Amino acid sequence: MSNSFKLTRVGVTDVRKPVLVHRHGEDHHLVARIDVFVNLPSTQRGSHMSRNVEVINEMIDTSVRRKARSLEELAAGICKELLDRHEYASYAEVRMAADYFLERKPDGGRKSLEGYKLMAKATARRGDGLMKEIGVEVQGMTVCPCAMETALRKLEQTVPELHKVEGKAPTISHNQRNRTSLTVEVPERVDVEADDLIDIVESSLSSPTFGVLKRSDEANVVIEAHRNPKFVEDVVREVLAKILKKYPRLDDSVHVTVRSESEESIHKHNAFAERVTTLGELRGK
Amino acid sequence: MSNSFKLTRVGVTDVRKPVLVHRHGEDHHLVARIDVFVNLPSTQRGSHMSRNVEVINEMIDTSVRRKARSLEELAAGICKELLDRHEYASYAEVRMAADYFLERKPDGGRKSLEGYKLMAKATARRGDGLMKEIGVEVQGMTVCPCAMETALRKLEQTVPELHKVEGKAPTISHNQRNRTSLTVEVPERVDVEADDLIDIVESSLSSPTFGVLKRSDEANVVIEAHRNPKFVEDVVREVLAKILKKYPRLDDSVHVTVRSESEESIHKHNAFAERVTTLGELRGK
Amino acid sequence: MSNSFKLTRVGVTDVRKPVLVHRHGEDHHLVARIDVFVNLPSTQRGSHMSRNVEVINEMIDTSVRRKARSLEELAAGICKELLDRHEYASYAEVRMAADYFLERKPDGGRKSLEGYKLMAKATARRGDGLMKEIGVEVQGMTVCPCAMETALRKLEQTVPELHKVEGKAPTISHNQRNRTSLTVEVPERVDVEADDLIDIVESSLSSPTFGVLKRSDEANVVIEAHRNPKFVEDVVREVLAKILKKYPRLDDSVHVTVRSESEESIHKHNAFAERVTTLGELRGK
Amino acid sequence: MSNSFKLTRVGVTDVRKPVLVHRHGEDHHLVARIDVFVNLPSTQRGSHMSRNVEVINEMIDTSVRRKARSLEELAAGICKELLDRHEYASYAEVRMAADYFLERKPDGGRKSLEGYKLMAKATARRGDGLMKEIGVEVQGMTVCPCAMETALRKLEQTVPELHKVEGKAPTISHNQRNRTSLTVEVPERVDVEADDLIDIVESSLSSPTFGVLKRSDEANVVIEAHRNPKFVEDVVREVLAKILKKYPRLDDSVHVTVRSESEESIHKHNAFAERVTTLGELRGK
Repeated sequence: MSNSFKLTRVGVTDVRKPVLVHRHGEDHHLVARIDVFVNLPSTQRGSHMSRNVEVINEMIDTSVRRKARSLEELAAGICKELLDRHEYASYAEVRMAADYFLERKPDGGRKSLEGYKLMAKATARRGDGLMKEIGVEVQGMTVCPCAMETALRKLEQTVPELHKVEGKAPTISHNQRNRTSLTVEVPERVDVEADDLIDIVESSLSSPTFGVLKRSDEANVVIEAHRNPKFVEDVVREVLAKILKKYPRLDDSVHVTVRSESEESIHKHNAFAERVTTLGELRGK
Repeated sequence: MSNSFKLTRVGVTDVRKPVLVHRHGEDHHLVARIDVFVNLPSTQRGSHMSRNVEVINEMIDTSVRRKARSLEELAAGICKELLDRHEYASYAEVRMAADYFLERKPDGGRKSLEGYKLMAKATARRGDGLMKEIGVEVQGMTVCPCAMETALRKLEQTVPELHKVEGKAPTISHNQRNRTSLTVEVPERVDVEADDLIDIVESSLSSPTFGVLKRSDEANVVIEAHRNPKFVEDVVREVLAKILKKYPRLDDSVHVTVRSESEESIHKHNAFAERVTTLGELRGK
Repeated sequence: MSNSFKLTRVGVTDVRKPVLVHRHGEDHHLVARIDVFVNLPSTQRGSHMSRNVEVINEMIDTSVRRKARSLEELAAGICKELLDRHEYASYAEVRMAADYFLERKPDGGRKSLEGYKLMAKATARRGDGLMKEIGVEVQGMTVCPCAMETALRKLEQTVPELHKVEGKAPTISHNQRNRTSLTVEVPERVDVEADDLIDIVESSLSSPTFGVLKRSDEANVVIEAHRNPKFVEDVVREVLAKILKKYPRLDDSVHVTVRSESEESIHKHNAFAERVTTLGELRGK
Repeated sequence: MSNSFKLTRVGVTDVRKPVLVHRHGEDHHLVARIDVFVNLPSTQRGSHMSRNVEVINEMIDTSVRRKARSLEELAAGICKELLDRHEYASYAEVRMAADYFLERKPDGGRKSLEGYKLMAKATARRGDGLMKEIGVEVQGMTVCPCAMETALRKLEQTVPELHKVEGKAPTISHNQRNRTSLTVEVPERVDVEADDLIDIVESSLSSPTFGVLKRSDEANVVIEAHRNPKFVEDVVREVLAKILKKYPRLDDSVHVTVRSESEESIHKHNAFAERVTTLGELRGK
């Protein structure tokens, strides 16, 4: 009885491997966590599990020799090879994630490597092409617009002089770490650069954050962030608007997911906003 | 510009609250992690975030007074109240998770409280009823059937006497911790007991595991598990078969998800199997 | 050869149990994570592992009947029983941790249960008494005093009117979630209340944080926090000063550890300060 | 008042950086998590936090140019530079951790990169030299010797033929993932290779584990592990014995810590053993 159901995904999870991605003339040495799956027909008791890690190992070796340009290119290669090796499967799926670093510099400050997270996914149905997902997670700062306004109103009750600086110097508010992720799913032949997605997200927060800030840089970041207060709702919408502008030629069918989470400094819980959509839906609004 | 997109989910995440669930004459004091969301129309800049935690607080107080029978009943109550308070929203969603304990006893051994995980979810579209999800995660033991067979063949090459015990005493294999989750999504009025789901999963592993095992109990668990070797694929399929048998009257439209992950003792990665389906699909196979 | 070394700690880790603590007329139902250890002489190959969980189970049952007043009282009871049951051991150690909730209310706002973390530890050498550790972790808000000052200087360059509000309305800065822990180690007979330690830590941050804040409460918290800017160094020192004041009669030999970590909103890393000391050292400075 | 206490450690935690370690002719690209601290005298309100990340950045750049041979060499360099830049500090401490990969091959099987964890620490008191800690964490398999024996006795009651294979073919038991760590603290000028520590730990488990195992390799690993059953106590003691043998010329004052944790397949909790000691104590037993 128990072997008469087909299964949606069978495979291995939490495989860790060093991978090399080469782009724009630079090598990025990443440590990837990898999950791979194929489906299993009802007629077969077990999937050949060892083939999964064999495929991962071989494709990562190949990618080092051929210089893979991205985690998603690597995921796509593994995904196709999975279908080749698991002859009984009609579906394959690969998920990868890795810490990633880019050089950043606050205005007038020092260069430093800032950390990001890359997420890649590839899915393929036999005979039906391959879809790949390019994803990034960016950490930055959000300043609450609402508390800024209510704090100003409350302070003005005892400090009437405040109206003289209103609009010139920003008011106090709560601000905090925010993590925003953006994933775009496209057909295999279409290219979307993770670095561009990082730029889109990082520029949609109240301010990016930096590893090294001298006193003067720190003041600049704080001031800029308070001149640019953002709810998580604002962050998600700004990312969506920039995606539309950046990719006018991507197809209406392209899936886009944006998630923004602020680790509220005045609460022990987080504020969260999300949009799961397609470019077509966004364009038609 | 940036406030002209609607949002799929806006809310708070990682709210922690003590909750009380009363069933079968027993009080279960749980510490729940709670996420709640509503959707947001394009015409509104921000969701009223503080209402979310107000609703959680009030509904948890109410549930203590009225003795909620389950985490999913509580989630459903919060979900409906969210739609009431966020008049601009047409969709609400609540997710809850908590550690949970049930008394268990190995054959001939001592009673002890064993730990499980409850997951509950409720989703509601305004004017369109409420769906609730009852979920459990169970930890147990799996013994690999394949390594058992290959180890037997290899051992027989140097120990021919082994064929005399074949079929009487089980052969060595690798065995390990397994985590299997089962979630069932049903309309609000339909009742599915989390304790039943735990029983279904726990009986589908090679063996349940126990906090206290005297030497003799330990031998029994090891022997029973080796007489009952299971791939993750087998575990998922056995859960599916038991679900069909246990709930003949549940509608074909009911969603069922089963995930089984073995933390392989011979690998540093995990083996994984999953089925995402409906009862109708399972019945028709 | 390999069994000729003694071992410092042998036992079980990550045991999870529901426990009941009764204080000030109130029941607190906690889910504890428990580690227990004894030492092992070089003459004995293995510790009797199953006795550890038996002791935990029995002492937790006993505590429910007798109404244990604290996690550390429970830890002490388990610790003494471990020495009784492991006759070959001369040392026993118990560590417990649990989420904990207390009712809190912002000035003029609504009551809500806020989450804390309790940590308890007990250590005993045979024939040499028992030491217990009472620990708490509190989450709150810190506002950076340094960025506040540099932002003010920078803003004044373009907004000279700012000097009219200086000292009356606080200037913007970065602020963030802070986690501060305090542990005090005392002999078994001495009582230190975890709730008092929570009060000490929570009042040493720029501001406590709250689950529910209406707009006006939110403004109050933000203003109060900015009138009370704190480095992690300040937080640790304020906790130390309050400990000295609160416990004038505790012995000089009492160990105190304070750790404060701010999840900086302008960086991706945390700021950290710690003091590991005794009351005697603190009193003599 | 609050600035009149000295502080034990003030610094930054969870800084993440890509680092390059070059040994035995091979480059290892690691992603390190880094914590750095200095002490703070009672006379100074705040530590200069930005200097910490500046030092990390500069020393990592330097290490790439000069090809650092180990994480602990890098930690030592950062530690000394911290004392140089924080002129008010008399103590500095650096902790680093990173995933690490080495090529491994089961007997007769395929080569694959296996994952390990490196931990490095450096501490320096001004004018008093520098101590460095070299640490590794290794994942492998343990088979329980006790359950093996009790299962055999129980099985023999119904399968008397079993005595014919006793001593020739191993009996079933429970087996599981084990994580064992070893750290050695030595003066700066003394070299201890992390790769040697990994070898010592990996050879002290019932069996190492592998990413890719064909059927025949899998049988070999299972058989070898069952011919080599180990309690966590045995693992720690075997590591201690090998350390003594491997490093006869290391000083008696060298600190050694060994921790072994088995994620028991028959329990939901872990079994744990630890020895915290010096080479002198080990030699004298």
